[in-house]
Amino acid sequence: MLQPSMILVNPQMGENIGGTARAMLNCGLDSLKLVNPRDGWPNERANVMSSGALEIMPEVEVFDDTASALAEYQYIYATTARPRDMVKPVLTPEQAGVDIYKRMAQGQKCAVMFGCERAGLANDDVAMAHSIITVPLNPDFASLNLSQAVLLMAYECSKHALSDVDVTNPDEAPAPMGELDNLFSRLENALADKRFFKEEHRQRATMRNIRNMYTRAELSPQEVKTFHGIISALTKNDS
Amino acid sequence: MLQPSMILVNPQMGENIGGTARAMLNCGLDSLKLVNPRDGWPNERANVMSSGALEIMPEVEVFDDTASALAEYQYIYATTARPRDMVKPVLTPEQAGVDIYKRMAQGQKCAVMFGCERAGLANDDVAMAHSIITVPLNPDFASLNLSQAVLLMAYECSKHALSDVDVTNPDEAPAPMGELDNLFSRLENALADKRFFKEEHRQRATMRNIRNMYTRAELSPQEVKTFHGIISALTKNDS
Repeated sequence: MLQPSMILVNPQMGENIGGTARAMLNCGLDSLKLVNPRDGWPNERANVMSSGALEIMPEVEVFDDTASALAEYQYIYATTARPRDMVKPVLTPEQAGVDIYKRMAQGQKCAVMFGCERAGLANDDVAMAHSIITVPLNPDFASLNLSQAVLLMAYECSKHALSDVDVTNPDEAPAPMGELDNLFSRLENALADKRFFKEEHRQRATMRNIRNMYTRAELSPQEVKTFHGIISALTKNDS
Repeated sequence: MLQPSMILVNPQMGENIGGTARAMLNCGLDSLKLVNPRDGWPNERANVMSSGALEIMPEVEVFDDTASALAEYQYIYATTARPRDMVKPVLTPEQAGVDIYKRMAQGQKCAVMFGCERAGLANDDVAMAHSIITVPLNPDFASLNLSQAVLLMAYECSKHALSDVDVTNPDEAPAPMGELDNLFSRLENALADKRFFKEEHRQRATMRNIRNMYTRAELSPQEVKTFHGIISALTKNDS
């Protein structure tokens, strides 16, 4: 599968590497590379936090330096929360997702870099990227957890990679209008019997309102039956 | 600030509550409610994992049951990974973000519910929602961490700024969930009086279906009154 790789540069906490793997696999991505992880690799905390993702994914590749990790990619994005003094296109995750998709459709190999939890990417790392990705966040509280940042990117990429899921169930199609008409007539008669319409000229407007409510609900045939049952029950005289 | 509330129902791990708070505040949201958190509240692990968010946000509100937590909201979304046998609109987080924005622009109070880590939302909780949100994920590895799920929703909401205000008639806005709860309780009692529930164990499922239909209709406060009138009329014994 052609997919963007996610590259964690100097990640500190195993938990975040595991959370990253889980988030990536949630979104159908499984190419994860690490540059010089602080606590070495493999990492037991990462395994636990990945909820099994690390066992399913191809082996994580580990590199000594950023340049080696990036060597095979044709287009590279650097994620960063603060502006850097570099002239590069700055994209939102959404824009980057579209851009990655277009490039992959042309056969380009793409990677997204993420810096360490404490300080983000070094300027030297950012300099290796073609574009910068910045998540538009609350300026007063902009520090995103590392695995959360990866999730946002993987999620935006997955909007293009994964096919749309159609969740419509044919059994949930609305009932034909004729069935609703029967229901309304019956309800109107029952209400008239109980002298619900105090002023006769209001009857039509009231019934129109009731019909509006039911129509908006797009009742299924089964639900229409349920309402017939309700009317039967409520009008039963069993004193 | 008008914003959607995030509601965690039966959350298990304090770490995830803290991660949720951090993710929300990253995206500019700070209305978090908990229903019956397993380890009580406040929670030290939540504080640590929130990276200071819980100190900045207004106090988290804790409720004993879902209905109480939802009482003030006019439109409610339930997040769920697996399909439920309920007729409700199913939205992606992206579509939900747009929908929430439109509703808030009309002054509607919105909430998004998330279930517990192990099993997600109970069917009775889902039944209280107007719409379902499902993240299109890798079908072979679809279990999203709780705080990651909240992040995706908060992030999609944060894409929309509340600038334009719609001029919808406030009389047509949905009634708060608490008013609907009263209506359902009354209807359930009336139906029970009339021995509508032939098998006692079916009562809960039947009421869930009825609640689904009414919730979908987004009844206005006036329409809720109309239904109270209908129940009064139909149950009147005037033989």
